[in-house]
Amino acid sequence: MTAVAVAGGGLVGLAVAWRAALRGLSVTVADDAPGAGASAAAAGMLAPVTEAGYREEALLGLGAASLARWPAFAAELEAASGLPVGLRTAGTLVVGFDEDDVRELDALHAFQRGLGLAAQRLSPRETRGREPALTPRVRGGLLVAGDHSVDGRAVHAALLAACTAAGVVVVRERVAEVVVDGGRAAGLRLASGETVAAGATVLALGAHSGDLPGVPPLPVRPVKGQVLRLAGARGLLEGTVRALVRGRHVYLVPYGDGGLVVGATVEDRGFDARVTAGGVHDLLHDAIEVVPEVEELELAETLARWRPGTPDNAPLLGPSSLPGLVLATGHHRNGVLLTPVTAEATAELLVTGTLPDVAAPFTADRFRRD
Amino acid sequence: MTAVAVAGGGLVGLAVAWRAALRGLSVTVADDAPGAGASAAAAGMLAPVTEAGYREEALLGLGAASLARWPAFAAELEAASGLPVGLRTAGTLVVGFDEDDVRELDALHAFQRGLGLAAQRLSPRETRGREPALTPRVRGGLLVAGDHSVDGRAVHAALLAACTAAGVVVVRERVAEVVVDGGRAAGLRLASGETVAAGATVLALGAHSGDLPGVPPLPVRPVKGQVLRLAGARGLLEGTVRALVRGRHVYLVPYGDGGLVVGATVEDRGFDARVTAGGVHDLLHDAIEVVPEVEELELAETLARWRPGTPDNAPLLGPSSLPGLVLATGHHRNGVLLTPVTAEATAELLVTGTLPDVAAPFTADRFRRD
Repeated sequence: MTAVAVAGGGLVGLAVAWRAALRGLSVTVADDAPGAGASAAAAGMLAPVTEAGYREEALLGLGAASLARWPAFAAELEAASGLPVGLRTAGTLVVGFDEDDVRELDALHAFQRGLGLAAQRLSPRETRGREPALTPRVRGGLLVAGDHSVDGRAVHAALLAACTAAGVVVVRERVAEVVVDGGRAAGLRLASGETVAAGATVLALGAHSGDLPGVPPLPVRPVKGQVLRLAGARGLLEGTVRALVRGRHVYLVPYGDGGLVVGATVEDRGFDARVTAGGVHDLLHDAIEVVPEVEELELAETLARWRPGTPDNAPLLGPSSLPGLVLATGHHRNGVLLTPVTAEATAELLVTGTLPDVAAPFTADRFRRD
Repeated sequence: MTAVAVAGGGLVGLAVAWRAALRGLSVTVADDAPGAGASAAAAGMLAPVTEAGYREEALLGLGAASLARWPAFAAELEAASGLPVGLRTAGTLVVGFDEDDVRELDALHAFQRGLGLAAQRLSPRETRGREPALTPRVRGGLLVAGDHSVDGRAVHAALLAACTAAGVVVVRERVAEVVVDGGRAAGLRLASGETVAAGATVLALGAHSGDLPGVPPLPVRPVKGQVLRLAGARGLLEGTVRALVRGRHVYLVPYGDGGLVVGATVEDRGFDARVTAGGVHDLLHDAIEVVPEVEELELAETLARWRPGTPDNAPLLGPSSLPGLVLATGHHRNGVLLTPVTAEATAELLVTGTLPDVAAPFTADRFRRD
């Protein structure tokens, strides 16, 4: 019997496990392929401001709270694991291409200022002064100096190492169901038939969270994203570049030694795993339009994964309607950003029984109230 | 001691080995990864007419001779191996996009008629009547009913099986050099140090043919090609579609159960193995422009390989300046098409000492005469 069983060994599941273990709980994580889901595709943006959507102020607050935790989280994780996580603090530059794109940039800037967020509108010359690899055709920019990035895969590798060092048991097996005993979650049943009995069970299965037998109905749906990884981009970009290209969105996030993530499509297609000709074409087209030298880079990897989408694009945290089952899912496009605050809040709940205020607006019962 | 040692187990090397073995010779083929070179990327077009370039009439004759051999070659290979090779005889449709593309189509048609080749100019309506998946924006077509295709990877698998059935020994090891003894090729030395002693040695290393120690200087250079394989295209196209898209060339070759090869870039970059963002973008862009439904297909594979290019785009066949060393290389864009005639002519030379007339214009000394 373990204190906590975590279903899912992606970024969120491992971070919860690590923080819970550091607070003295015995933790077992089950996942047949830890990190092979959405964590493998994530670009690693820590970008609450440039991700902020209209009517998503609550989510913006949670994102800002998590971004504030990232530097200490990264430092502690690197120390615990001995591995780098690739935190980059060069900020994020949003650029616009044509007149309509620049109008959208202005609207975004007005929205950000209305919320008191730090963002600086740049002329085309200033924009290219910051990122000289941008095409001369860029019509304007918006610098969000506080939106950063990490190398998501490096974070995952570090979390695995830190979990092991903290005594977390990682069972590499598929989770088959949540064991429900007397109306209470009592652990996980694995594909082998083996059971991980636990006092508390954490659901961190991303887009698959709603499918797991034993889990009460959850408003989580898969939102497909296709993403590319390019190589050979050393020195090409200082920080993250997000672009509006004739109404389409693309981002370019540098990482590691010359890596560049280009993403991402947003598709409501269920669990469609296909990398498509059209998806890859559009990403390459827009990335090359924004940074022409991308044409010469190696196309190292193409992926399709599923974000765990929710009706309001915000995560599902804290207790569920099934006693003993704790939610750490529904992170949609913000999984990497929200990892520290999710881990901290979930660990606090597991240890004390109380969900911290920062996470309280994100319990699943917000949808039942509607 | 074997009668014949073949360096290279791609389509050409295996076909030579198979035909030589059928004529009673003992044959050993050496290749560390048979079929992993240009053979893995080849689209499988059997298209001497639509490939014909200006001032390449001699090559056109060789291509036509090989195309004429393909049906019997395919039938015999399928019987010998028990495996299908995917011969498609639905012809090839060349389509043009804008006015300049259609002018190029007309020039191509005039060139073909001048050579007495069968090709039929089609109106836009006739063109789409033949391939309804084509965009309505196609401005005209040229039907070459005699240009066909095979599934190049299926042919390779069948050749491996047929070789084994015919007693050919395939050694899966890298060829390190041609053994030269008393001014004569005497077999192959493998990476392990082992020697395959042979009465005759055949060079079929594709783009690497000029690099092998012991081989006399050869005018073979790598011509990089990037190619895509898409899936889910069952029923989309009847036969091969080649298109001129605003001056760029793209081809779409259906194969197997819903496979579609889209190719190819032609790049003089030496042995650059990178699949690039620009290469993939341009192929996807042009393919989607020509057949819009391509957008929805799965991008199953991206590859970069090297064609063995020569100064006149024609192969190097027959004896070399090194006695005992026979050439079966330099097939550039026509490796699959020229496989049967190359195999037949080379086997004839190995058995009788005489290179058949059909291959005689393609010996390497044509470059020394210049």
